[in-house]
Amino acid sequence: MLRKLEDSAVLEKLAFTTDSYVIKPIFFPGGNIGKLAVTGTINDLLASGAVPKYLSLSLIIEEGFEFEKLEKVLESARTEANLASVEIVTGDTKVVGHGELDEIFVNTAGIGIIEGESFSISKIKPGDKIIVTGTIGEHGLCVLATRKGLELDTNLVSDCAALTGVGKIARESNCVHYMRDPTRGGLGGILAEIAIESNFGIEIYEEKIPIKEEVRGIAEILGIDPLYSANEGKFVIFVENNKAETLLEKIKTDRYGKDAEIIGEVVHDHPGKCLLITRIGGKRLVDLPPGELLPRIC
Amino acid sequence: MLRKLEDSAVLEKLAFTTDSYVIKPIFFPGGNIGKLAVTGTINDLLASGAVPKYLSLSLIIEEGFEFEKLEKVLESARTEANLASVEIVTGDTKVVGHGELDEIFVNTAGIGIIEGESFSISKIKPGDKIIVTGTIGEHGLCVLATRKGLELDTNLVSDCAALTGVGKIARESNCVHYMRDPTRGGLGGILAEIAIESNFGIEIYEEKIPIKEEVRGIAEILGIDPLYSANEGKFVIFVENNKAETLLEKIKTDRYGKDAEIIGEVVHDHPGKCLLITRIGGKRLVDLPPGELLPRIC
Repeated sequence: MLRKLEDSAVLEKLAFTTDSYVIKPIFFPGGNIGKLAVTGTINDLLASGAVPKYLSLSLIIEEGFEFEKLEKVLESARTEANLASVEIVTGDTKVVGHGELDEIFVNTAGIGIIEGESFSISKIKPGDKIIVTGTIGEHGLCVLATRKGLELDTNLVSDCAALTGVGKIARESNCVHYMRDPTRGGLGGILAEIAIESNFGIEIYEEKIPIKEEVRGIAEILGIDPLYSANEGKFVIFVENNKAETLLEKIKTDRYGKDAEIIGEVVHDHPGKCLLITRIGGKRLVDLPPGELLPRIC
Repeated sequence: MLRKLEDSAVLEKLAFTTDSYVIKPIFFPGGNIGKLAVTGTINDLLASGAVPKYLSLSLIIEEGFEFEKLEKVLESARTEANLASVEIVTGDTKVVGHGELDEIFVNTAGIGIIEGESFSISKIKPGDKIIVTGTIGEHGLCVLATRKGLELDTNLVSDCAALTGVGKIARESNCVHYMRDPTRGGLGGILAEIAIESNFGIEIYEEKIPIKEEVRGIAEILGIDPLYSANEGKFVIFVENNKAETLLEKIKTDRYGKDAEIIGEVVHDHPGKCLLITRIGGKRLVDLPPGELLPRIC
């Protein structure tokens, strides 16, 4: 309800953002709620063009929650903060009765410093190229598969990661107009929102969108469109047309950007709408996520 | 676990703090979880000597939570932020299944700006006077009485309030060494902590501690010592000895400071211990709160 389209509120030279995490299960292939909370807030700050500096970490714990699990969650949180050179400087812990929540909820808030210009949806313009920094849909499908106890014959893990390197490349490129992390709602949901908010048209090419084979497979089994499946280690970047190839090459040098692709562009046509150009040349509306989103994937 | 003794982490000229609120019931005489979350975080910032500027507000809501209640909670949050000239600039909402929590949990994080010197426990020294800015124990007892459905023949309400005026007086006095809001653990718990942390002795006078008659009555019925009952609209202030009377007079001019009293002082004796001098001249150790604290009072 209070969430703005842009993830961080930019306060002069500060960016400030918050998210609560209620993911179920709290441990999943590729991460846990502690890693997710820290990397999620770091990515929100990076997406606004800020250098992440300080985090708060607030826990609501169910009475009887195993100390060993708590240690693992906190250890992951610390590790990710250290990796990103971010300090967890304040926190809070509340305990509620057994049965009043599922094990643990985590809230992180983050402060970043905007050194140059901030990115803003108002800077998007027709001609801008759209880069996605890697393969899509992994987090949402991994969590859903884990929750359903699917015995999957794959190595699918969540993409949950702090994109510190990619964020730095974007900031220093001086050609990025806007950036978002396509979490809830996935790549499709985020692009549909941005089309509405910017009031320009967006066109993306199906054949350009990087998707892992195992994601396609599991998506089919679960009946989920990977385009609307959450990501926790990806950015969608709107970039000055003639600088896009150069930026893409730089992003590909980062471990979290090696599968990056230019997937589309901003156009004058069909303002407020995002269209997917299919492999056979058809056009399909990429709408806001249909119906209720999967609960508790982050 | 992560909470430091000082409520806000002071980052050069910024103060940053967070708290999660899981109070039960979410509506109580004198406030609700929205008012409590906003005023609690504002008071944390004020206690560090900062001017509160920006808040985040993050909600975890149980599916089926009545929209009317949500509106009331948000309206209270907005009202308190406006009263304190603080902007709620970022937020997040998560929904979890019915039965997974009690209606709503709220997290607020806050940023303040330190204009002069920050207050610090390390500035406390023997001779300092201790001011409490009003009558103690109301919030904890009010919540507990409400929860137990006690039909009380009193007008007892929570003291939940943002102490903007008192905070400003303290900042501008140039004689405050340290300030805390005695929430969980109450006045006694906070003073016991500060004695340990500062490694000085503390002495407080029973006859000087302001307590409302109805608080004494309800405390007796419920078997709770008001000294350990939570406050949500009070500060404990450590102040330069010879400036204490002048500061007290100024604090009394504020609507939330009219019952302020000098209740004791910092001493060289019994380092690490807080003693209560009783009405008849006896000395009683004010220890850390005994046993488990009442859950979910904030």
